[in-house]
Amino acid sequence: MTDALLTLTTDFGPGSAYAAVLKGVILGINPQARVLDLTHQIPPQDLRYTAFFLETSLPYFPPGVVHVVVVDPGVGTDRALLYVEAGGLRLLVPDNGCWTPVVEVGGTPPCVRRLQEARYWRHPVSATFHGRDILAPVAGWLSRGLDAEALGPPVASWTRLDRPTVDVGPHRLTGEVVFVDHFGNVITNIRGDAFLAFAGRPVRVTIGGAEVSKWVRTYAEAEPGSLVALVGSAGTLEVAVVQGSAAERVRAAVGARVEVVA
Amino acid sequence: MTDALLTLTTDFGPGSAYAAVLKGVILGINPQARVLDLTHQIPPQDLRYTAFFLETSLPYFPPGVVHVVVVDPGVGTDRALLYVEAGGLRLLVPDNGCWTPVVEVGGTPPCVRRLQEARYWRHPVSATFHGRDILAPVAGWLSRGLDAEALGPPVASWTRLDRPTVDVGPHRLTGEVVFVDHFGNVITNIRGDAFLAFAGRPVRVTIGGAEVSKWVRTYAEAEPGSLVALVGSAGTLEVAVVQGSAAERVRAAVGARVEVVA
Amino acid sequence: MTDALLTLTTDFGPGSAYAAVLKGVILGINPQARVLDLTHQIPPQDLRYTAFFLETSLPYFPPGVVHVVVVDPGVGTDRALLYVEAGGLRLLVPDNGCWTPVVEVGGTPPCVRRLQEARYWRHPVSATFHGRDILAPVAGWLSRGLDAEALGPPVASWTRLDRPTVDVGPHRLTGEVVFVDHFGNVITNIRGDAFLAFAGRPVRVTIGGAEVSKWVRTYAEAEPGSLVALVGSAGTLEVAVVQGSAAERVRAAVGARVEVVA
Repeated sequence: MTDALLTLTTDFGPGSAYAAVLKGVILGINPQARVLDLTHQIPPQDLRYTAFFLETSLPYFPPGVVHVVVVDPGVGTDRALLYVEAGGLRLLVPDNGCWTPVVEVGGTPPCVRRLQEARYWRHPVSATFHGRDILAPVAGWLSRGLDAEALGPPVASWTRLDRPTVDVGPHRLTGEVVFVDHFGNVITNIRGDAFLAFAGRPVRVTIGGAEVSKWVRTYAEAEPGSLVALVGSAGTLEVAVVQGSAAERVRAAVGARVEVVA
Repeated sequence: MTDALLTLTTDFGPGSAYAAVLKGVILGINPQARVLDLTHQIPPQDLRYTAFFLETSLPYFPPGVVHVVVVDPGVGTDRALLYVEAGGLRLLVPDNGCWTPVVEVGGTPPCVRRLQEARYWRHPVSATFHGRDILAPVAGWLSRGLDAEALGPPVASWTRLDRPTVDVGPHRLTGEVVFVDHFGNVITNIRGDAFLAFAGRPVRVTIGGAEVSKWVRTYAEAEPGSLVALVGSAGTLEVAVVQGSAAERVRAAVGARVEVVA
Repeated sequence: MTDALLTLTTDFGPGSAYAAVLKGVILGINPQARVLDLTHQIPPQDLRYTAFFLETSLPYFPPGVVHVVVVDPGVGTDRALLYVEAGGLRLLVPDNGCWTPVVEVGGTPPCVRRLQEARYWRHPVSATFHGRDILAPVAGWLSRGLDAEALGPPVASWTRLDRPTVDVGPHRLTGEVVFVDHFGNVITNIRGDAFLAFAGRPVRVTIGGAEVSKWVRTYAEAEPGSLVALVGSAGTLEVAVVQGSAAERVRAAVGARVEVVA
């Protein structure tokens, strides 16, 4: 038994018993495990948001932590369940691509195994809840020090996420809204460095029919109520209203097109 | 001091300071305690949902964990507060029946004590928050190894939950909706084995005025948008829309009648 | 490395990756740290609610726990970030006053330091997320036993919160609604002892145009559906509907005026 760290990221929603079930299963195998909630409020089955969530948060964790991700629209199909290791990051995830952007950023080619050794699963395995029956028990065993090689054979191919594309040109960047946060900040997939490469030129950001012409380093640089563009905490272009909600002002939801012209 | 595991299940809601208060009180008594959130989003004072939540999740936990449940519409009345032990499961709960279904499943007769020894409470005891003043401090003391016998005398009777009934006949099952999850899946109280006993016969499920004629093993067995019945992750009959919301489709809320005819 | 306790209180909202980021940064510095969520659902940038939340919950924690508060409308301005110590309570907070009411209650003059030693920060420091880049890493170092003196110089002045005022007269108390909880209970800033000083006299509570004439010790003392006033779990005057929602009945939101006349 070790007090290894595990994290949970799911789309189970508030008030659901399923997150508690995952904790119970893990602790049933390793009562010393330290289980940390990342979130249980991924929008239902939203793989793109899961990818955004994971690439925003996982790089900050120390190596060795096992991250369990249960966003699994394919449960009950023959989609695989995977153990992924890349540059110190360890993941247990359905083979639906939600994890691939996290690993791509690192650059290290991941070591990926298909979970196949049923002795580390909970039986009978249901057709509807592999988080409980496969991922959580495997996480419990890993936290006890089980070697990942025991879980199943390495695989060389996996599903990649179909992500919103970003076009980067010398005078124009095109991307999409990937998240609207609690403050109404509208977060895009246009990387901050591409945006900053336009520094010193007049820049116009178009989003959901609205135009943003003010570009700041931080919210506090403009008057309350101003609509501004900045490089946000996720490292990408963000549109915000100082002390207000940009999502309300520009009526831009996830998937809306964003254009930057210099 | 030991690093004993405690869990919290409450109806305090998001953003409430009361869950933090419980943690503070427990850690004030045993700073080594490991306090785990199960949920703080039980619908306010909903004992039936609490029962469903507890029977879905607690059986997965290892024996010895102390589960603190603060859903307490009777606070301030003379309802008792209880320590319950049954088959390795340990609970601190108001005497309102929300815990009885969990224990009934196990079959072991529970050992129940009325919390009476005020030396393990926080003083002055308020009239509105016994979770803070009685349950949490008692949980802290238990986590330090206090013998449960010290808490109060055994009792032989307690409140049982008035639960929605299920009728099981040779050709007909009748029950109710007990929960609608984050995905819009409609979960009933009709046990999966009763439903599966109809296997091989044409089955019709009626719920909220809608008819479900497709019966699957898992969501992925039907086309997106199909309305299906299956045995869900809680082990009971569930009505779902593949990649959609059954709750929206059939407009069935908690308490709606469900009928299965074979 | 020690298994020191840290708590997190933020306004990041459900589903946000930022709370996970804070945990990753802290654990990256001290993998043994025990990180506890108090809430991530403070209403966005609501300093008054933050103050109410902190003064309701922090006094219950044992001394020595480091409480990290990331409600930071001034991020990116030159507002300071502070380490506060008062009567065993330790806080890492932006200098926006949200913490001052907690410390005032205790009466001990706080020891306050401005975070200035950038060697304990994460670099590059962003202009939008000092929770991640300054407060979380400093919390990680403190949990490893770093002496607070190393963080920066003591300061003698800080921002105080502009709080809703309470007028206490011999026959009249005037205050405001500070919180509406999950149950619809309307919680005011009128201290319970001031209210109880009117005991034995006929008392009339006016709130949001409605009149409350029934005064109880606890919810259960009145019939379901009654509108009552009581001293609630936060120690202040609260207006409630027994087994119902006072917020709906009296239509009183945060900031509404409350008057008690005896």
